[in-house]
Formats: sequence, structure tokens, C-alpha cells
Amino acid sequence: MRVEIWSDIACPWCYVGKARFERGLAAFPHRAEVEVVHRSYQLDPDRAKGDTEPVTAMLTRKYGMSEARAEAGEDALGEQAAAEGLAYRTRGRDHGSTFDMHRLLHFAGAHGRRAELLDVLYRANFAEERSVFGDDERLVELAAEAGLDADAARAVLADPSAHAAAVHADAREAALLGATGVPFFVLDRTYGVSGAQPAEVFTRALDQAWGGRSPLVTPVGADGDGQEAGQQCGPGGCEVPREG
Amino acid sequence: MRVEIWSDIACPWCYVGKARFERGLAAFPHRAEVEVVHRSYQLDPDRAKGDTEPVTAMLTRKYGMSEARAEAGEDALGEQAAAEGLAYRTRGRDHGSTFDMHRLLHFAGAHGRRAELLDVLYRANFAEERSVFGDDERLVELAAEAGLDADAARAVLADPSAHAAAVHADAREAALLGATGVPFFVLDRTYGVSGAQPAEVFTRALDQAWGGRSPLVTPVGADGDGQEAGQQCGPGGCEVPREG
Repeated sequence: MRVEIWSDIACPWCYVGKARFERGLAAFPHRAEVEVVHRSYQLDPDRAKGDTEPVTAMLTRKYGMSEARAEAGEDALGEQAAAEGLAYRTRGRDHGSTFDMHRLLHFAGAHGRRAELLDVLYRANFAEERSVFGDDERLVELAAEAGLDADAARAVLADPSAHAAAVHADAREAALLGATGVPFFVLDRTYGVSGAQPAEVFTRALDQAWGGRSPLVTPVGADGDGQEAGQQCGPGGCEVPREG
Repeated sequence: MRVEIWSDIACPWCYVGKARFERGLAAFPHRAEVEVVHRSYQLDPDRAKGDTEPVTAMLTRKYGMSEARAEAGEDALGEQAAAEGLAYRTRGRDHGSTFDMHRLLHFAGAHGRRAELLDVLYRANFAEERSVFGDDERLVELAAEAGLDADAARAVLADPSAHAAAVHADAREAALLGATGVPFFVLDRTYGVSGAQPAEVFTRALDQAWGGRSPLVTPVGADGDGQEAGQQCGPGGCEVPREG
């Protein structure tokens, strides 16, 4: 079974939801047969590179919150994170464009390191003092920490087109599947789970998707009838090519 | 959309079917949104490493074919390959265990090189004089040709447990999905296409799977009712943590 998870590095519920999902997955009997694929989603896709501001400033400016309300929200998110054993700085975090981080994540995926880099970026953004925004060298260091080649990561960051199409394709796919926010979990392209649900909800969804796997459908042939079987090799050998 | 392709390196119809599928995919309007994932399948899983014999000897011994019939079969497969522009040596090929090649393919996958290595292995097995069986250094050279680190590939070959579980997991998955031979194509875990079908059949199957994508299902909640939406971040900001 495959689980796809759409998320953004600047999304606190994605950070918390990933930990909850992983707890839910750990309780799922067939967890060894589950492949997890992380996908990109930008909450703020129109934000320019370098347009960085404190999270609380963004919340008061963009959503008209009072500063006290914004800080209370961060405190509450910090508690949710702590409940999952995650560090969370409730004051002084920045908000900015995550586009370059998503490009780096796709680059990491091509080297089998996407999950590692995602964890490193979450931790850097939510738990560390130094901002992940507005400093390419900071991202290069984080990429190296995830096991990637620093020069290759630097080259990806220097070329705004590198892995950009893959980031946009993930966003389109999320929209086609009906996502309106993140985290967004899709099980075998059949079941959708929205948001940072409790771990038990993920376990139940995995159970249900596992049990509900239905037999494959054979596409109809050109004449509208069932399709002929194609030529195969099997335990009994390879089919002999047909005449004509 | 995702297409998974189960195949074996020692399977002529997989070699031909891959080329036909790729022609079919090239004619599909949404080809840029299709992700192709190659999976392992062993036609002869009980064959020991080092148990290598000529293909014609295997066919006469295992399936009781006359040598003339076995050679005619190879000639016919060579014609099918040629029709796809693929080189195919109809005489003198070997048959043996492909387990180590599948382990290498999973290793290549972890480095984003699976498709490259699969093409290199097909070409080596079907078109080149030097056997791919019974010679680890031959496989190391082919891995390097696919862009992998030679020493790392050598270490994978030297450790029979490396990536073995992934090969077996692919086989189990194929069986669960109803595969009885290869090549076996699965579109979005919903449509199954068996065998080296004509390119047009693949295009039609892609069209049908694309058109037939149904909305995601929400898993039921613990009380049997619909599930509450989880906490998310979206274009309107992040949901505030719930009380209690």
C-alpha cells in the first residue's frame, strides 16, 4: 500500500501530523508493506523568495489577528507539538517562501533522501533559532546534514528552474485530489485523510484501506469488449509470438 | 497518475512490452503527469545463484520443447523486438537467477537510477554477447554504466540480504494484485494490464484510467459515521488547536 503525504515546511499541523501519522502507522499490522511518499504543497505560493517576516507579524498583517491571539495560537501549537515529543519555538520564528525547500526536497528524492531532508527542514524551521528563510547557505548545510552533496544542493538552489516543475506537479495533483489544505494524506489513491488527525484515526484508515483493496479492473478493448490478454512470460514459460 | 510495471530481466515480453508501453505513453496527452515505477518479479525464483544454462537448453529441458521449436521461438521473439527497434540475440543467450539483478535494481532505486539500470540490464541480457549471469563484476560494470557507484554496487552483490526484502515484497504485491506472469502493468492501483500489449492498448488504458479517476473516499470514523476533518493549514491560515 502507498500513502502519499502532501505538506509544507511552514505548516505547523504538517509537522505535528507527520508525527501522529507515524505513530498511527507503527500500530498498523501491515506497516512493513506501506510505502510513504512525501509530496510538495506551498501554503503561500505567491510569496517571493526573500520576502521573509516574523510569523506573528504575518498573522497580524494577513489575518488581522491581535498579537496576543497570534501568540496564544503559537503557544497552543507548541503544546500539540510537545505532546508528540517535538520541539517547537513559540516565539521568534520566521515565515517566508518555501519554494526552494520544496525544490531541494525533490532533488533529495532523486537521491533517496527526501524523508531525511524533510525531517531536517521541519526541525530547523520549528525548533532552531537560525531562520531557514533568506539564506541559501543555511539550506545547503541542512541538505548536507540530510546526506546530500553540498555543491549539488547549492547548484539546485542557484537554478530556480531546477525541480520547479515537480513542485508544481505535486500542487496540481493535490488540487485534482481535492486537497484544500495540508497535511493531506492519500492511501492507495483511494482514501483521503485531511489534517493532523489523532494517531488512532490513521491506524483505522490504514486498516480500512488495506481491507478495502478491490481487484484490479481490466480496461475495455477498442471494440468495447474485454481486452485480450497480452503476451507474457510466467511460471510455465513465455508465450509464443502470435501469427500476423 | 502512477503506473507500476512488474517485470523480470530474463523475460523477453517484458523487454518488448516496456518499449510498447513507452510508445503508448508517448501518445497519451497527460504523459507529463504519469509517474512510472518499476517493480521486481522473478520468473524463476527458486533458481540458485550460479545455476546458469543456455536459454535453449532451459527450454528443451524444462518445457520439453524440441531444439528446433526453441530456436523458432527465439527467432519469433527477435522479430517482435526488432519491430520495436530493440536488438535481440536469438542464439547463445543464457538463462539464470535474476535475484541479484533485482537487488541491484532496488539499490539503484534508492539512488534514483532504477529506470537507467533496468535499460542497461535488458540491453546486456538480450543484445550483448557477454552473459549477465554468474559474474558479479559484470553486474558491477553495468551498475556503474547506469550511474551507480561501483564499490557500493559490489557491496550490495556481496551481501545476499541487501535489498532482498524489497524484491520479495514486490513479488508478494504482484501476487496480491493478481499477477500470474509478467510484464504486468497497474495504473493507479485500479486498472491492470497483462502482457506486452500493442502500444495503442496502453494509450487507451491510460485514457480510461485518467477519465475514470474517482473522488477519494473518506475512511469512516470510530463511531461508523463520517470522520471529522483534522486540523490543517490552508490559504486562510492554520486552524487553531481545539480545546481538550
